[in-house]
Amino acid sequence: MRRAVKKLEISMRSFKKELTFNIPGRVGFVNITHDVEKALRDSKIKEGLCLVNAMHITASVFINDNESGLHQDYKDWLEKLAPHEPVSHYRHNRTGEDNGDAHLKRQIMGREVVVAVTNGELDFGPWEQVFYGEFDGQRPKRVLIKLIGE
Amino acid sequence: MRRAVKKLEISMRSFKKELTFNIPGRVGFVNITHDVEKALRDSKIKEGLCLVNAMHITASVFINDNESGLHQDYKDWLEKLAPHEPVSHYRHNRTGEDNGDAHLKRQIMGREVVVAVTNGELDFGPWEQVFYGEFDGQRPKRVLIKLIGE
Amino acid sequence: MRRAVKKLEISMRSFKKELTFNIPGRVGFVNITHDVEKALRDSKIKEGLCLVNAMHITASVFINDNESGLHQDYKDWLEKLAPHEPVSHYRHNRTGEDNGDAHLKRQIMGREVVVAVTNGELDFGPWEQVFYGEFDGQRPKRVLIKLIGE
Repeated sequence: MRRAVKKLEISMRSFKKELTFNIPGRVGFVNITHDVEKALRDSKIKEGLCLVNAMHITASVFINDNESGLHQDYKDWLEKLAPHEPVSHYRHNRTGEDNGDAHLKRQIMGREVVVAVTNGELDFGPWEQVFYGEFDGQRPKRVLIKLIGE
Repeated sequence: MRRAVKKLEISMRSFKKELTFNIPGRVGFVNITHDVEKALRDSKIKEGLCLVNAMHITASVFINDNESGLHQDYKDWLEKLAPHEPVSHYRHNRTGEDNGDAHLKRQIMGREVVVAVTNGELDFGPWEQVFYGEFDGQRPKRVLIKLIGE
Repeated sequence: MRRAVKKLEISMRSFKKELTFNIPGRVGFVNITHDVEKALRDSKIKEGLCLVNAMHITASVFINDNESGLHQDYKDWLEKLAPHEPVSHYRHNRTGEDNGDAHLKRQIMGREVVVAVTNGELDFGPWEQVFYGEFDGQRPKRVLIKLIGE
C-alpha cells in the first residue's frame, strides 16, 4: 500500500533581525517603518505579533507621526523634562558618563513597541509609523525586530 | 482498508477586533476592560498574549485604576507636563493642527498594553483595568485588540 | 498492518510564573533579571516572547541600567515630576489613599516589558537588565512572567 506522506504544517514561526544605527548628533529620530515591513515580509508570517525594541538603554523605539515639526517638539520637550546640562546634576554621570539625561528621556519615549500582524501586514492605523529615538548618539547602536506567529 | 482521518490540532490561533470611540471632549478616559474580555472569549484562546493598542497617535491604551479622582489627576498632570495652550508653542501646529500637546501626552501614557492570557482569562492583578485615553477627541478613533495563543 | 503512531509535535508552549516583592520603603528598585532568566529556563521555550509586568498599578517593570547612581536619579526625577507631598494635591487621595503620586510615577516608568527569546536566551543588548520598580511599598506585591513560544 502506497500513501503520500502527510506533511505536518507546524504552525508557529519565529524570525529575528537586527538593525544598526549611528546617529551623527546626540539626539535624533529615524523612521524605521520600512525596515520593519521588510523583516515582516522576510519572515513570511501572516498572523502574529511583531516586537521592535532598542537594545541600548539610552535609546527608544516608539510609534508616532512622521512630521519634522513634531520631532523638534519632542526634542525640546524631553530636554525640558530631563536636561542634558549640567551633566553634574546626574549621579549616574559620576561613573564618568555624561548620558544620565538619556536614560531618563528613554523612559518617557519607551523601549519597545508591539505591533499586530494581520494578513501579512503591520496592522496600523492611518498615521502610525515606527521610529528609532536616539538620546546618546555618535556610536553604533542596535534595534531588535522579533516576529512570532504563523 | 478504512481509517478515520486524523484531525491535526493546529495549535496557534490568532484573533483581531477593532473598537471605535468618539469622545465628546478633547480629553477623556474610557474603561474598555469588558470589551477586551469579550474579544478574548470570542477568540477561544486559553493561553497566550493579548495586545491592545490605540491605532491613532494622539491616543493611548493603558492599565491603571478605575477611580474618577485619579483620572482627573492624570488630566491635570498631563496638562502641566504638556499644556494644550498656547497652541503656537508647538512646531507641529504650524501644519494647521492644534494637537501638538496630544502627541506628547500620549507618549507619557503609552500606546499599548500587552496582557497575559491564562486559563482563558486576562491574567490581571487585583486592580488592573484597561483604559482608552483620548487626547484629541471629537472624532471617531479606533483601538485594536489582537490575540495570539492556543 | 501495523504502524507506529505518529506523535504530533504541538509547537506552541506557554509558561507562567509570579514573583512577590515586599519593598521596605515607599520607593525602590529590584533587579529581577535572574528571576526572569530562571523562568525562561523552566519554560523550556527556545523561540518566542517573554512578557514581564507589574500586577499592581502603583509599580512598574522596566529595562535599564544596573547602576545605583542612575536609580537615585530616577527617584529624584520622578519625585520632581510627580511629588508625593502634599498628599492633598491628588484627588485620588480623597479616597483615603496617599498613593496618588505612585499611580503617576508608574505611567512614566511603564507597566511592562516584552523581551524577545532567541536560542533559549533573553535576547538583550549589552546593558539591558529587568527591574521591578516600586512606588508604594511596604506590602507584598506581585510581578507576572508569561512566556509563549516553542
